[in-house]
Amino acid sequence: MSSEANQEELQNGTRSTNKQGSKKPPKEKKETVPSGKEVKKETKLGMTVKKNENFGDWYSEVVVKSGMIEYYDVSGCYILRPWSYAIWEVLKDFFDAEIKKLGIQNSYFPLFVSEQALTKEKDHIEGFAPEVAWVTKSGNTELEVPIAIRPTSETVMYPVFAKWIRGHRDLPLRLNQWCNVVRWEFKHPTPFIRSREFLWQEGHTAFATKEEADEEVKIVLELYRKIYEEYLAVPVVKGIKSEVEKFAGGLYTTTVEAFIPNTGRGIQGATSHCLGQNFSKMFEIFFEDDKGERSLVWQNSWAFTTRVIGVMVMIHGDDKGLVLPPKVATVQVVIIPVPYKNVDFNQMLDACNEVSQKLESAGLRVKQDTRDNYPPGWKYSDWELKGVPLRIEIGPKDIENKQVRMVRRDNFEKEDVPLEKVAQRAADLLDEIQANLFKKAKEVRDLCIKKVFTWEDFIEALNDKKMVLAPWCDDVEVEEDVKARTKGDTGAAKTLCMPFEQPDLPDGTVCFASGKPAKRWALWGRSY
Amino acid sequence: MSSEANQEELQNGTRSTNKQGSKKPPKEKKETVPSGKEVKKETKLGMTVKKNENFGDWYSEVVVKSGMIEYYDVSGCYILRPWSYAIWEVLKDFFDAEIKKLGIQNSYFPLFVSEQALTKEKDHIEGFAPEVAWVTKSGNTELEVPIAIRPTSETVMYPVFAKWIRGHRDLPLRLNQWCNVVRWEFKHPTPFIRSREFLWQEGHTAFATKEEADEEVKIVLELYRKIYEEYLAVPVVKGIKSEVEKFAGGLYTTTVEAFIPNTGRGIQGATSHCLGQNFSKMFEIFFEDDKGERSLVWQNSWAFTTRVIGVMVMIHGDDKGLVLPPKVATVQVVIIPVPYKNVDFNQMLDACNEVSQKLESAGLRVKQDTRDNYPPGWKYSDWELKGVPLRIEIGPKDIENKQVRMVRRDNFEKEDVPLEKVAQRAADLLDEIQANLFKKAKEVRDLCIKKVFTWEDFIEALNDKKMVLAPWCDDVEVEEDVKARTKGDTGAAKTLCMPFEQPDLPDGTVCFASGKPAKRWALWGRSY
Repeated sequence: MSSEANQEELQNGTRSTNKQGSKKPPKEKKETVPSGKEVKKETKLGMTVKKNENFGDWYSEVVVKSGMIEYYDVSGCYILRPWSYAIWEVLKDFFDAEIKKLGIQNSYFPLFVSEQALTKEKDHIEGFAPEVAWVTKSGNTELEVPIAIRPTSETVMYPVFAKWIRGHRDLPLRLNQWCNVVRWEFKHPTPFIRSREFLWQEGHTAFATKEEADEEVKIVLELYRKIYEEYLAVPVVKGIKSEVEKFAGGLYTTTVEAFIPNTGRGIQGATSHCLGQNFSKMFEIFFEDDKGERSLVWQNSWAFTTRVIGVMVMIHGDDKGLVLPPKVATVQVVIIPVPYKNVDFNQMLDACNEVSQKLESAGLRVKQDTRDNYPPGWKYSDWELKGVPLRIEIGPKDIENKQVRMVRRDNFEKEDVPLEKVAQRAADLLDEIQANLFKKAKEVRDLCIKKVFTWEDFIEALNDKKMVLAPWCDDVEVEEDVKARTKGDTGAAKTLCMPFEQPDLPDGTVCFASGKPAKRWALWGRSY
Repeated sequence: MSSEANQEELQNGTRSTNKQGSKKPPKEKKETVPSGKEVKKETKLGMTVKKNENFGDWYSEVVVKSGMIEYYDVSGCYILRPWSYAIWEVLKDFFDAEIKKLGIQNSYFPLFVSEQALTKEKDHIEGFAPEVAWVTKSGNTELEVPIAIRPTSETVMYPVFAKWIRGHRDLPLRLNQWCNVVRWEFKHPTPFIRSREFLWQEGHTAFATKEEADEEVKIVLELYRKIYEEYLAVPVVKGIKSEVEKFAGGLYTTTVEAFIPNTGRGIQGATSHCLGQNFSKMFEIFFEDDKGERSLVWQNSWAFTTRVIGVMVMIHGDDKGLVLPPKVATVQVVIIPVPYKNVDFNQMLDACNEVSQKLESAGLRVKQDTRDNYPPGWKYSDWELKGVPLRIEIGPKDIENKQVRMVRRDNFEKEDVPLEKVAQRAADLLDEIQANLFKKAKEVRDLCIKKVFTWEDFIEALNDKKMVLAPWCDDVEVEEDVKARTKGDTGAAKTLCMPFEQPDLPDGTVCFASGKPAKRWALWGRSY
């Protein structure tokens, strides 16, 4: 509902029925805005860029104006304000409880890593070396040797794994930590998506057998799918990474891949790696089995990061701002009194309180916006910008009719709900919104997957901003070749993953790129 | 119970009745230790240093052997293993819930801070400059300007506070973050107590009035007292820091001070600072009040760190290892089957399971130690080393008599408890242990506070490893003078705090050090 419409409502006593509302900031009208100066300062709060017109600018605007992010004077670093950090806390609570059920324990390993440990696994350090930040002095004193800041903690943890693991009874060893890591990227930094410091969890585990390691890789990947699909309402494709794209130094990498339709780019959602015995060899992590034989342990590592929040913003946000899935929204329902002239405002507040209590008793996260220096329409826009899933408006007629008006953020549908049913209806609507956001996002995503057999169709689909599912020979050289041939202004195409769910691959099918016999279907695309 | 005693028990079918047990590792006896090699590797697991004989070595040994800490190859950094990290999680859960009730929100600000921001408040940077770690390169590239790692986040946060706060409606602004900070200390590093990286929460808040800021300082300090006294069972003295000892750049600092009797040193437990308007002046954090007047905000910052765990270890630990207060213990009750020859081990396991389920249903944190490669006595020592508050032993006679034996870690008292009462009795005993640990620690601490009026008595008490409560003139020069006069091998004495609870100060009382009129009682001591 636009603020203009609402000013009208305030003056005429009629409720606007326009479905979409307006992004425009409220006109300043002194008579209805007690603290005019404050409003004036904030009239530029609404979105000014459209998602389909300039996606990059839209994204920067929405994360800042919704109150998720503040930019910072160290390039590539961002401030996570409570509005985004609370989403991280919801995901953390979920994931932390799940891994604890699996018997994984939290711990904390140092931020710093010695050069000696960091460079022990050659492939691994090759992957990370250019991005490693080095501390070389403290105060005015040069350190004797530079100390690296962890880009990830394999090399921090595994030297002590070698110490802790002796016999088969010390296995499995399953640790996790919630921490910050630093990768001094030189690509264009983007809040949540690519930042020089980010928050994550990293699990590091060691097993006696490959089977146990394989099993955990899958279980954790399924948790990552749940974070995306069940919490953030973002559809992902589960699959395995190609040799080129797998984790540096690992055996194989599984992934959940999301897709941003506006840019036509895939984005790695979270990864669960089986490291095999490569790190255990380098770090000499042996165990003695029950027959007295000495073997290398099998290891996994897995992580998801604050990136997940950025993907969610990109998928669901619209021209009015954020759209938060109810399961992760800090505020699920905002209650806004709609005062009319000559109506007792305290009576309105009582009604808001009553509804708020009903919703809170039902376990919903509720906020009343009773600020007296903004008109209702301005508040509607403000909470739409912040993405709150459900708005409840309460005006004098609602009170008279013992009802409230509910307005959904996802599709702006409105309905009047009798007072005695508010809690149940709000809970149901939140479930519907959660389901609808996922359904809509999946429909759009599914339309973005194009199945092709030939190079021509591949290029056409790619240029049409699609993910491309193509039969592939699975040769490293061919992936490098495809990268080289598609390198342009918008970046080369690469494999996103080989989906676990494979379409039929009839005998005789050939690779779209090499013409050699195809081994499997791979999902290709440009990517973040 | 010593393992020798237990070996005897295994062979003779009698239960040892010695009250103290032995710290000695078990003798290796092939016939009763199936996996002899593993035991051999771990026979040095027990404590070898006595707390009263060499406190420093005892502390290093206990934090490592209990599985709390692993040393690390970057000096001054330590690995927090699950056994200690889980204690941090308990405290975090408590404190986080409490501050959320107060309306304080979590957020995350960057690890890095620009030199410009860091050096804005002169007193502040003077206090921290020598300890600041600087990143000067990434990969092989020199950064254009060095970037500091946060030693604390005032200078990270306050530039944006100035941006976010405009009007009185933006206040109070109350944020908190859980994070790591780095202070490249050159003093002797000690796990938990003094490390170059540590974990903490830091709260940063801004108010319109000094009264609101003062009030919060007190409320938060009370939460810190609860952490120490109600969770860690460590008595603390609440008070205000002297001008010399207050937070660099702040207005005043309140503190909870603990005391380590073995070393005769006070230790700052946690601090809640009122920053006054000093930072807001430097960072230009103004707000417009409801009359349109422009004023500086009043600010607080407050923090507690992983140091709390170290203090707890120092206070309660004994010659057998850690002693964990039940409220923070990861495992509150360990159940150990005591098998006899010719007794069905599965029957024992069933009995352990049954007891375990009863305790878990009562909400207790329980672990069964059913390892078949260690004798019971070895397990007793192992869990004593790890500080588990309550041990339950279940042998064939216990099963026959429908009872279990409970053994307290704090005083080694044993009792036989009927099966139908195990849950209630265990819960009661845990409460008793929690209360008893605090009571004992407080008795010892109280004996360490010596009230004096003269310099001679002050020096005598100090050399007797006491905290000294003395009437003081509250002059900065006098504190500096006392420091200079007491500087010796064991470090100078300084004010720990001026306790909130002040004894009577009769008119005419003079300062113990200067002879000038005394203004208040101050608590002095050597300190960590």
